[in-house]
Amino acid sequence: MSEACPDEFVAFAEALTELAAGIVRPLFRTALAVSTKADLTPVTDADREAEAAMRARLAEVFPGHGVIGEELGSLRAEAEYVWLFDPIDGTKSFVTGKPLFGTLVALARRGRPILGVIDQPILNDRWVGAAGRATVHNRAPVRTRPCAKLAEAALAATTPDMFLGADAARFARLKAACRFATFGADCYAYGLLASGFLDLVAEATMKPHDYAALAPVVAGAGGAISDWEGRPLTLASDGRVLAAGDPRLHAQALRLLAEG
Amino acid sequence: MSEACPDEFVAFAEALTELAAGIVRPLFRTALAVSTKADLTPVTDADREAEAAMRARLAEVFPGHGVIGEELGSLRAEAEYVWLFDPIDGTKSFVTGKPLFGTLVALARRGRPILGVIDQPILNDRWVGAAGRATVHNRAPVRTRPCAKLAEAALAATTPDMFLGADAARFARLKAACRFATFGADCYAYGLLASGFLDLVAEATMKPHDYAALAPVVAGAGGAISDWEGRPLTLASDGRVLAAGDPRLHAQALRLLAEG
Repeated sequence: MSEACPDEFVAFAEALTELAAGIVRPLFRTALAVSTKADLTPVTDADREAEAAMRARLAEVFPGHGVIGEELGSLRAEAEYVWLFDPIDGTKSFVTGKPLFGTLVALARRGRPILGVIDQPILNDRWVGAAGRATVHNRAPVRTRPCAKLAEAALAATTPDMFLGADAARFARLKAACRFATFGADCYAYGLLASGFLDLVAEATMKPHDYAALAPVVAGAGGAISDWEGRPLTLASDGRVLAAGDPRLHAQALRLLAEG
Repeated sequence: MSEACPDEFVAFAEALTELAAGIVRPLFRTALAVSTKADLTPVTDADREAEAAMRARLAEVFPGHGVIGEELGSLRAEAEYVWLFDPIDGTKSFVTGKPLFGTLVALARRGRPILGVIDQPILNDRWVGAAGRATVHNRAPVRTRPCAKLAEAALAATTPDMFLGADAARFARLKAACRFATFGADCYAYGLLASGFLDLVAEATMKPHDYAALAPVVAGAGGAISDWEGRPLTLASDGRVLAAGDPRLHAQALRLLAEG
């Protein structure tokens, strides 16, 4: 992330989340969103429609860029610049009426995320992080808070059910060392961490379109984010993510997450 | 709940949540709320101040009524009418900046909840349920949605960590039978259930000030709510709560929660 992200990409990413919000927002807490109870299909339709709109806009503005989307797959994924879209990250929150889902837009250059937007269209919370810039929340710079000890840390994860196999024990070890754990926030938790309200987020079984936007948001607010081995997140990461507001805490959490 | 709750009590309960909101709302996402990181003490102070304000108002208006509060204990708990206050239900959500905590005000007559208010002062969501009335959300009547099968049900709980001993396996059995589970909403989940966005909420280790307000909200929207044995909630219940939007689903969930 040594090279600054061009301004035009930042403005474009924000415009894309607004495009998605125009499709997603009207469906929140409507009969369409919940018509088949726990069936997530109607939301998938909204997800797909919003992703298609973002991809169409991208093809007009940056036709040479690649794209990876949750619903509609990959195109030119080998390009220098690749965009990642997840119109409704937190589908279960969306269908159950909890305004903690988010629209994620990220840009990776040569496999490394250099720009990320987390947009919550109901609460009107938007975090924007980009290489060479301070992360902003609703256009105001934000910073993570210091927290040097796990015993003082507030930890978040979307659900303990996301940790499979040995990862469940690794997460349980981290959780036991923290002051407390809270669940259920999806991408919104990383925004809260960037703004200094959470100290740690540990998650797993994530896809590039789930985590690519989070890395620039956390890093640009002074936090540390990596996989569970401490390696920088790339589009080839294994789906395990550890974010800490305080880099000292990140190092401690990595030791607890180490296997064996 | 056969006897209707007097109007004056309903209006008074709503006024009490507004009193609490005036104290709690300004502290959300402020340095005070998070000043000591994961230490919950500053929030406890806000909780106590809001509870004291509600108790003082109660003493003026209904001096013969009893009161049970999260922070300041019980007074005249043997009175015919007893009020229950929890200014910040969902302390962890509050301190981590998630607007899913709530202010709970309930009134019990001879140990049975007859009135409940769930108020979310940041999102401005208020559910009011009372014996003899339809539950309202922001003054509009709401109904739970039909869902006859566990396999189609969306289940919520605040955290899987709230289930101790054998209850963890009982909850896991229920969760495995449902379409999916979502975590992290505290009292707000019961409001979402009353409004038809969730089908089941199963929780445990709750105190009367946590659950008393929920019973009239769920029942007045057409749902079923009880302990895990199917008994109506009273101030002497054991802290296990099962709420279902569809009474048919409630019966099925009870069978799965049965021990053995």
